[in-house]
Amino acid sequence: MGITLAQAEQAIAAAKAKSTELGLKMNIAVVDAGANLVAFARQDGAWLGSVDISIKKAKTARFFDMNTGDLGQASQPGGSLYNIEHSNGGLITFPGGIPLKDANGEVIGGIGVSGSTVENDHTVAQAGASGIN
Amino acid sequence: MGITLAQAEQAIAAAKAKSTELGLKMNIAVVDAGANLVAFARQDGAWLGSVDISIKKAKTARFFDMNTGDLGQASQPGGSLYNIEHSNGGLITFPGGIPLKDANGEVIGGIGVSGSTVENDHTVAQAGASGIN
Amino acid sequence: MGITLAQAEQAIAAAKAKSTELGLKMNIAVVDAGANLVAFARQDGAWLGSVDISIKKAKTARFFDMNTGDLGQASQPGGSLYNIEHSNGGLITFPGGIPLKDANGEVIGGIGVSGSTVENDHTVAQAGASGIN
Amino acid sequence: MGITLAQAEQAIAAAKAKSTELGLKMNIAVVDAGANLVAFARQDGAWLGSVDISIKKAKTARFFDMNTGDLGQASQPGGSLYNIEHSNGGLITFPGGIPLKDANGEVIGGIGVSGSTVENDHTVAQAGASGIN
Repeated sequence: MGITLAQAEQAIAAAKAKSTELGLKMNIAVVDAGANLVAFARQDGAWLGSVDISIKKAKTARFFDMNTGDLGQASQPGGSLYNIEHSNGGLITFPGGIPLKDANGEVIGGIGVSGSTVENDHTVAQAGASGIN
Repeated sequence: MGITLAQAEQAIAAAKAKSTELGLKMNIAVVDAGANLVAFARQDGAWLGSVDISIKKAKTARFFDMNTGDLGQASQPGGSLYNIEHSNGGLITFPGGIPLKDANGEVIGGIGVSGSTVENDHTVAQAGASGIN
Repeated sequence: MGITLAQAEQAIAAAKAKSTELGLKMNIAVVDAGANLVAFARQDGAWLGSVDISIKKAKTARFFDMNTGDLGQASQPGGSLYNIEHSNGGLITFPGGIPLKDANGEVIGGIGVSGSTVENDHTVAQAGASGIN
Repeated sequence: MGITLAQAEQAIAAAKAKSTELGLKMNIAVVDAGANLVAFARQDGAWLGSVDISIKKAKTARFFDMNTGDLGQASQPGGSLYNIEHSNGGLITFPGGIPLKDANGEVIGGIGVSGSTVENDHTVAQAGASGIN
């Protein structure tokens, strides 16, 4: 099913380090290739509402193998995927979710981060994705 | 877990007084720091659909420690948090939900009011928040 | 729609007094004749899981105009209403929910109490029902 | 909100160590005093269906401040809490969920473990609970 727990924990550790460096409080979720939760961490004081959002971002990124923010471009009113958020028990389509790939470029899971601006969420998610060896 | 029942009842009493003063009929909900319901009151004749809305407003305000209307600014089409309402089993992001804070500014819960215009909902929620000793 | 907020608050006050007298911590919910929430209170330290249970007890009592414990007699394996709990988004069929009636015996709502043994839950619910003038 | 992320990670590390020692593959979830998720880990190859079960066990343990297996004793057919599982969006009432307490005995959260027999689930949850400093 792709990512191992050890790799997911590397991603979360790297995301936590970046979040702390930026003075933020984040929820961080990692799912595997089957879009099932592998690891999760909520930093002390992070928004409670972002528990679910971070998990949904990670799943959304793996559901469609693209950054959540890219999907959100197409889900706007008039867009080709308008209101796709109604599927799969609720998607989150703003930035902060990124597919995770192995050295061959194959998708092995997804990471989702929520707790600040979407720019910060994406930055921390990228740090997490880059932290996997 | 933050707010006590006695404080929640103060908030509801103050909100009810303001609602009555304005000739309105409101649903008023208070949640604690864990976003769990502490107290609720529906004034006679208030909209039935606003039971759930008032509870969701109170939870949303605590989920993100901000007024629900502020969140709604960012969840519009094209906004950075478009369709965030699909998370957490349903958020309400128009005015009427306010985080409740103690004397040190720490969030101890949230209040949500629904039953009139969003301006009136917000005014009554503010009265409730101010009613806590 | 039956019960007024003033009456619901009488019921909750009477239930709280009985709960305190018995040294308990209860969640107390009152619904109207339409099975919609009118008032709710969670005593400090009461079980979080009983928020939903108390509301479901109040609704269940009004849904079928009988004590929840009576319904539970018939929902056991082999019983005529086996697993009726799957309906209506989830019923609770053990004691603690009681229909509320006016002086003419007409059902005007329901009260649900949860936070202790089912015997205590029922006792406190009865005190609440008896507290309405 | 009770437990910190650092404490939750201690609990998960201790639970993982015990699971590995016993040759098992577990899902491990920790919630805070508000029953909101703080940390989660799924060991490689652990049952996918146990993601949700471990989270529900952790929440159930905090919802009622007791071991999930104790609740399950009372929710059997004919028991006083028959079919309580229909509340709170689904409870899990067999062993593997334990409330987490601080040095003063106050509940600060809950841990839920799922992936093997309920005896093993409970053993690993206990190891997790004992791992908090």
